[in-house]
Amino acid sequence: MNTIGHIFRLTTFGESNGAAIGGVIDGCPSLLKLDFDFIDNELCRRKTAQSAIASQRLELDRIEWLSGLLDGLTLGTPIAFMVRNEDCKPEDYEAIKDVYRPSHADFTYEQKYGLRDWCGGGRASARTTLPIVVAGAIAKQILGEKDIRVSAQVTAMGDAEQALIEGDTVGGIVECRIVGIPAGLGEPMFGKLSAELAHAMFSLPAVKGFEVGDGFALAKMKGSEANDTFIINKDGKITTATNHSGGIQGGITNGNDVVFRVAFKPIPSIAQLQQTVNRAGETCEISIQGRHDVCALPRAVVLVEALAALVTVDMGMMKL
Amino acid sequence: MNTIGHIFRLTTFGESNGAAIGGVIDGCPSLLKLDFDFIDNELCRRKTAQSAIASQRLELDRIEWLSGLLDGLTLGTPIAFMVRNEDCKPEDYEAIKDVYRPSHADFTYEQKYGLRDWCGGGRASARTTLPIVVAGAIAKQILGEKDIRVSAQVTAMGDAEQALIEGDTVGGIVECRIVGIPAGLGEPMFGKLSAELAHAMFSLPAVKGFEVGDGFALAKMKGSEANDTFIINKDGKITTATNHSGGIQGGITNGNDVVFRVAFKPIPSIAQLQQTVNRAGETCEISIQGRHDVCALPRAVVLVEALAALVTVDMGMMKL
Amino acid sequence: MNTIGHIFRLTTFGESNGAAIGGVIDGCPSLLKLDFDFIDNELCRRKTAQSAIASQRLELDRIEWLSGLLDGLTLGTPIAFMVRNEDCKPEDYEAIKDVYRPSHADFTYEQKYGLRDWCGGGRASARTTLPIVVAGAIAKQILGEKDIRVSAQVTAMGDAEQALIEGDTVGGIVECRIVGIPAGLGEPMFGKLSAELAHAMFSLPAVKGFEVGDGFALAKMKGSEANDTFIINKDGKITTATNHSGGIQGGITNGNDVVFRVAFKPIPSIAQLQQTVNRAGETCEISIQGRHDVCALPRAVVLVEALAALVTVDMGMMKL
Amino acid sequence: MNTIGHIFRLTTFGESNGAAIGGVIDGCPSLLKLDFDFIDNELCRRKTAQSAIASQRLELDRIEWLSGLLDGLTLGTPIAFMVRNEDCKPEDYEAIKDVYRPSHADFTYEQKYGLRDWCGGGRASARTTLPIVVAGAIAKQILGEKDIRVSAQVTAMGDAEQALIEGDTVGGIVECRIVGIPAGLGEPMFGKLSAELAHAMFSLPAVKGFEVGDGFALAKMKGSEANDTFIINKDGKITTATNHSGGIQGGITNGNDVVFRVAFKPIPSIAQLQQTVNRAGETCEISIQGRHDVCALPRAVVLVEALAALVTVDMGMMKL
Repeated sequence: MNTIGHIFRLTTFGESNGAAIGGVIDGCPSLLKLDFDFIDNELCRRKTAQSAIASQRLELDRIEWLSGLLDGLTLGTPIAFMVRNEDCKPEDYEAIKDVYRPSHADFTYEQKYGLRDWCGGGRASARTTLPIVVAGAIAKQILGEKDIRVSAQVTAMGDAEQALIEGDTVGGIVECRIVGIPAGLGEPMFGKLSAELAHAMFSLPAVKGFEVGDGFALAKMKGSEANDTFIINKDGKITTATNHSGGIQGGITNGNDVVFRVAFKPIPSIAQLQQTVNRAGETCEISIQGRHDVCALPRAVVLVEALAALVTVDMGMMKL
Repeated sequence: MNTIGHIFRLTTFGESNGAAIGGVIDGCPSLLKLDFDFIDNELCRRKTAQSAIASQRLELDRIEWLSGLLDGLTLGTPIAFMVRNEDCKPEDYEAIKDVYRPSHADFTYEQKYGLRDWCGGGRASARTTLPIVVAGAIAKQILGEKDIRVSAQVTAMGDAEQALIEGDTVGGIVECRIVGIPAGLGEPMFGKLSAELAHAMFSLPAVKGFEVGDGFALAKMKGSEANDTFIINKDGKITTATNHSGGIQGGITNGNDVVFRVAFKPIPSIAQLQQTVNRAGETCEISIQGRHDVCALPRAVVLVEALAALVTVDMGMMKL
Repeated sequence: MNTIGHIFRLTTFGESNGAAIGGVIDGCPSLLKLDFDFIDNELCRRKTAQSAIASQRLELDRIEWLSGLLDGLTLGTPIAFMVRNEDCKPEDYEAIKDVYRPSHADFTYEQKYGLRDWCGGGRASARTTLPIVVAGAIAKQILGEKDIRVSAQVTAMGDAEQALIEGDTVGGIVECRIVGIPAGLGEPMFGKLSAELAHAMFSLPAVKGFEVGDGFALAKMKGSEANDTFIINKDGKITTATNHSGGIQGGITNGNDVVFRVAFKPIPSIAQLQQTVNRAGETCEISIQGRHDVCALPRAVVLVEALAALVTVDMGMMKL
Repeated sequence: MNTIGHIFRLTTFGESNGAAIGGVIDGCPSLLKLDFDFIDNELCRRKTAQSAIASQRLELDRIEWLSGLLDGLTLGTPIAFMVRNEDCKPEDYEAIKDVYRPSHADFTYEQKYGLRDWCGGGRASARTTLPIVVAGAIAKQILGEKDIRVSAQVTAMGDAEQALIEGDTVGGIVECRIVGIPAGLGEPMFGKLSAELAHAMFSLPAVKGFEVGDGFALAKMKGSEANDTFIINKDGKITTATNHSGGIQGGITNGNDVVFRVAFKPIPSIAQLQQTVNRAGETCEISIQGRHDVCALPRAVVLVEALAALVTVDMGMMKL
C-alpha cells in the first residue's frame, strides 16, 4: 500500500529520520530526457527553511539516481532515487518518545504495528512526501510534451504570523487546475478521474477534504443552476459555458479545465501546552518544540500539483 | 477499472437498459450464512418508486444468485449475482439519442469510447449502483459479527417538492458514521482509510465533495482548536476528548467513530428547457422527460453505507 | 484471485453444478463487432460429448450476454456473460459426498474453506474453464485484426481407447504457437511473457508442466547448441536462424513464433477401484462413476489457445 | 511489472552496471527482528567468484538498509535496501555495444524500448536477481518461525569444466522442496500455488521450463498410476501415499511437500565465435569475452529458494 498508480506507478519508502527517503517509478516511458534542473526546482518549492513560518530543519535534498537512466535518458526500467536524511535530531524527540502527540499518528501507528519510529514523524512525517515531488516532476515533464499544465495555489489560509507568536498553527485550502487535459480521460465506475484524484490527495498528510468543481456548494444548488450547458466555442469545438463540474462528468474529462480543492487541517505540532496520554496510559502534558511548520500550505502546493500530474499521466496511459 | 477492493473485491457490470445489472464478489470468507432478507431490505432502501420525488421506474430487483453458494452458505469462491432490467423504455430516450444532455456523461462517454449506450444512462446510470448495495449488505453482515455498524443519513438537502413543481432538481449532503471500528485500521501512504473512503465515495454518480471529520472547516481552525486531546475513558481505554479528526489520524483509525460527509450535486436530468449541442455539433434545446428522481439523496444513503462497509471489510482484511 | 490480466482482464465465476458459469471481461476496447458464430464455434471445440472418450454430460452452453454490448458492438464497459448449468446430476455425487477422491481437489478445498461444493467438481471442475474460452475467442478476434494467430495441438497423448476399456485415464501434452506476434512484447523482471504464459497455463486444471521453446531439453544443451543466431531474412528483417528460445529472450518477444508446451496429468476420475479416506478419517474404497473424460487433451487445446490469446492481448496493451 | 507478490510485495530496481541494485519490500509484518547474518549468508550463496566456473566479477555486495527498520526491528513500513555496483567495467562491453549477442536480451530490449543499457546486461543481467535473495531471506525467516523450510539443489547439469575449456556453457535443472507447508494454501482459478510458483520461476533469467510433482512425466502416465492415494499416517493425519502431485491439488496444498523443478538453459555468453547481426543490420561475428559464468546453476539454487519463499509467504497472507 505504498504504491500509487496503475501503469505509471510510484512506490515510496523512508522514515523522516531513517537513513533515506526515496522512491521507485515503474512504467515510465523510455527515451525521456529527464530535466534534472526542473526536478530540483520542484524540490525547492517543497523544501523546508524557506520562510519564518516553515520548519527550520535543513536538508540539502540532493537526489541520488540509482537506476533506470543512461546518460540522462530513461531506459524504460524502474527509476529508483533517494535522498539521504542528514539533519536528523532524534534528541529533539527523546522527551516525547513515550507520549502520544494529539492528532498525530503516534497512537494509531502503535495500534497498528505494535511499535513506531519515535525519532520524528517516521513514516507519517511530511518529509515522506519528497518522492512524490520527484515523480510528479517527471510526470509534469511528460504532460508538458502534450501541453497539459498542472498548477495549484493557496486560496485560503489562517493567519500564520499570528499563530507563530501564539505557539499555534493554521490550516488552509489549495486549489488546483489541470489545463489542456483532453476529453475522454478517466474510467467509469471505480476508476473515475475524480475518484483517483480524491484518493491521491487524501494520501497527503493533514488532508481532510476534497471537492471537484463547485464541490460542496453544488449540494445547495438546483439542477438548473448547477448544469453546465454545452456550447460551440469560437474554434468550432464543443465545450461548456460554465464549469461547475470542474471538467469531469461521469468521472471522465469533458475537455474543460479540471478544477479541484483540497482542505488541509492545521499541523498538529503546536508549542502550546496540551493535555494527552502516554504509553503507560497516564495523562500528562506536552509542549511540542523542535522544528515544525506553522503552516504546511505553502509547501503543499507542489505536492498537490505532483499528485495531480501523477494521476493524469497514469489515467492517460489507461486509455486504450 | 470496474473492480473495487484489494482482498474483498467487487466487480460490477451492466448498463441501465441492457439485459442485466450485476456483480462478482471475490474474496468473501467461506461459511458465511447469507441473510437474504437483509440484502433484499437494503435493495428496497435503494429502489425507485418510493416517493413522489423519486423516479417512477418500476423494477422488481429480484436477485439471481449465480455462484459461490451452497445451501445459503458462502463457498469462498466468487459470488456472482444479477438483476434483470425489466422495465426498460428505450423509446423514452429515442428523442435525445443524438443530443448531449448537460452535465450528464453522454458527451464524455462518446469522447472516450466513440459510442455510448443511448437507451438510458448506460454504464453511467445510477441504476449501476445496485450491485454495490448487494455487496455492501454482505459486507455489513461481516462487520455486524464484529459489532461494527455503518449508518448514514441525509444532513442537508434542497427543497425537493418545490423543485418538482419547477421541473428542477436538488442536491444535498450525506453524513456517514462507522461505529465500533477498531484502532489500527488503514495503511500509511497510499492506503489511508480516508483515501480509500474518498475513492469509494467518488465512485458514486453525482458526488462532488468528500470530507472526513470536521473536513473543510478544519482549514479555518488553529491547531489548538483542531487537535483531539487524548484522554482515558471510563473503561480505562485511551480515546480522544473530541473527534475533529473523524476517527482517522495519519490515515489509520484511532478507535473513535469514523465520520465523513459526501456532497452530491443535483441530478442533471431536469424537465426545464436547456440549451445544448447535438452530435452533429449544432446547438439545440432539450427538455428531459422520462422517469427521473428530483433528488438522489434519499437513496444515496444506503449507497454511502454500502461502500463504507466494503472499504472497512477490505481494509480489515489488509491488516496483517 | 479469480481474475487474470492487468489491463484486459477476465474475472470468472461459477461451480460445475451451481446455477451458472460465467465471466466479466473488463478492459475490452470499444467498437469491436463481436463475432458470435466464432465464439460459439470455439465453445464447441471445448464442449463435452464429442467422442467416446469425452464426458457424456450434455450442455447446450448457450451464452447469455448480460452487459457491455449495443447491437453487437462492444461499449468499452464490462462484458458480462454466463451459461446456465442445465444437465446437473448431483445424485451422481451423493455417494461420494464424504469421500476424498484421490488427486482431486476435494481434500484441499475442504482444508482451505472448511466446506466444498460436493455436487460435482465445484469450482475445481473443468467446466469452470468455459468462460476462458469465451474471453479467449474475443481476444483472438482482437489479435486477428493484427494478423496474430494462436494455434495449439496435441503432440503427445496416452492410449485413450485402451484406457477406456480399463476404466483408466490418460494425460498428454499440448503445444501452442503464436504466429505474427511483434518483437518487443513482454516486460522485464516479473512481467516476462514467458512468466505470464506459465501463470496462465497453470491456471488450467491438471496442468503439471510448462516449457518455452526447447524447454527442459535446453538444460542438457551447451550454449553453442542452444543459442539462436541472428540473421537477416529475405525481407531484410532481423530474425533468428533457429528458435530454441521459443521466440522469447529476456522475457520479451524477438519477433519469431512464440512456442510453448503444456503437460497435462491424466484425469484423476477413474472407474477402477481406489483406496482413499473419507471425511470421518476412515480408510475406504472408491470407484468413480459418473460422466467423465478419459482424456482432457482434445478439449484442452482450445483452452491453451484461449489463455495464450488473453495473455498476448493483455501484454500488448501494457506496451507503452 | 517490476513488482512480485500480492500482499507481501517486492519491487526491484537496478541495472547491472548502473549506480545500484536494490528493492523495496512492502507488506512485511512489523516487529520482526531481521537476521542480518543469515541475509548476508544467502547473498554469499548467490555471489560471484566462488569457483572456476563462475564469473570473476568481484562485488562486495554490502547491503545498505534505507528504511523500514528501527534497531533491527521491522516497522511494518516499506523496507528499502540497495547494493552499490562497484566493479563495473563498461569498457568490456564497448566492443559489442552495437552487436546483438545471440540469445541475449539485447535485441528484444531495443525492440521494446528503443534503447538499451549496453554497459553489461542492464536490467536483463543476472545481477538484478540480487534483491530477490535479500527479500527471499526475510521470507525464509518468516517461514522458519512456522517451521516451513524451503530447500533446493541442482539435480542435473552439463559438464561445466569441459565447457570451460571449449569456451562454451552448460544448463541444468534445479529441484526445490517446501517442507512443512500447511494444507489449504493457494487460491483456485488464477491464484493456484502452482501458477504463482511458475510465474515466479519464469522471472529468473534463462528459465525455460517448470514442472510440479512428476510434471512432464505425468503426461505419459495413466490415472491409476498418477493418482496419489489418501492414507492415514501414523499421527492419525490424512496424507497421501505417493506425491506425484507435488503437494498441490486443484492449485491448493494438501499438506505434503511441495516439489517442483526448474529448467535453465545454458548461459548465452560464450567465448566461441558466433555469427550475429549488428544494429546497422549487418551480419558480423562475435566472441564474448568478459567475466561470465560457465553455468548459472550453482547460484540459481538460492534464487529458486528465495522466490519459492516469497510466494509461500505471500500466499499464506492471502489465506483469509
